[in-house]
Amino acid sequence: MSLATLDDVFTEQIEDLYSAETQLVSALPKMAGAASDEKLRQAIETHLEQTRGHVERLERIRGDLGITGSQRCKGMAGLLEEGEEVLGESGSGAPKDAALIAAAQRVEHYEIAAYGTAWTLADELGYDDAKRLLGETLDEESQADELLTKIATGGLLRGGVNREAAER
Amino acid sequence: MSLATLDDVFTEQIEDLYSAETQLVSALPKMAGAASDEKLRQAIETHLEQTRGHVERLERIRGDLGITGSQRCKGMAGLLEEGEEVLGESGSGAPKDAALIAAAQRVEHYEIAAYGTAWTLADELGYDDAKRLLGETLDEESQADELLTKIATGGLLRGGVNREAAER
Repeated sequence: MSLATLDDVFTEQIEDLYSAETQLVSALPKMAGAASDEKLRQAIETHLEQTRGHVERLERIRGDLGITGSQRCKGMAGLLEEGEEVLGESGSGAPKDAALIAAAQRVEHYEIAAYGTAWTLADELGYDDAKRLLGETLDEESQADELLTKIATGGLLRGGVNREAAER
Repeated sequence: MSLATLDDVFTEQIEDLYSAETQLVSALPKMAGAASDEKLRQAIETHLEQTRGHVERLERIRGDLGITGSQRCKGMAGLLEEGEEVLGESGSGAPKDAALIAAAQRVEHYEIAAYGTAWTLADELGYDDAKRLLGETLDEESQADELLTKIATGGLLRGGVNREAAER
């Protein structure tokens, strides 16, 4: 596609995010299933529900602004391939959970960067409804990332997943 | 590889980062060459120099801890494929620069997530030297991300790359 105007860039970002989120909806159930820690499993399942909502918000933006194209997000594809590798490795319990969290936080940060860009562009272009919807999702992605940090470092679990793994 | 202990997870993270950074050293010159805005080009070139330093820090950590393995970081590979797509698209000037910044910030956020994880694990495992080196790089990655935001939104440029692109 051509990047002649800022609107073109915004369209490309929305198409990329739409692909990224739909890929993630397919991948998260497997990640949840691989988690040993109950709070981690619940956090991933909750985020799966949120992610379905993120897809719906993007569909509203696409409908409102007449964005109909699509392109496979190669960034998310690579991140999920990396997550698949973790799922395929031997090991279990806290070390495996720590590796799972590491993969999940890479995904969250991808989305934080991408929604941050899209929000800024919507602001610049005066797309107020899109800006509001993108901001809501951006907040949820940041909260999901913070929750994963808490699970890893011990806010939610006694000692955290990492402490439990270090004691092995 | 096996993820039986937290040390295994740390080793995997260092191997992943080492691959990610060396891939990035190869990719950044092309991104710098594609930037129209002088400050953006300079920022990418400065980050290339920093990235070479990040590789050296990882080599010290590998040497100190006897980490000899390697594995291709598929996450970074996907992000750089996405960046290549932007380079291949038609368009120039501010819109293209805005898309370039969007791709670069996804890369920075990957690294922020990955170094954040590695720093936390080094802390947990009592690898004080590694923790210090990883923390130094993490700070530089965060600063690079903030600089890109400033270039995009107008801290450095009159109106910023995005404003210039919106006026086309």
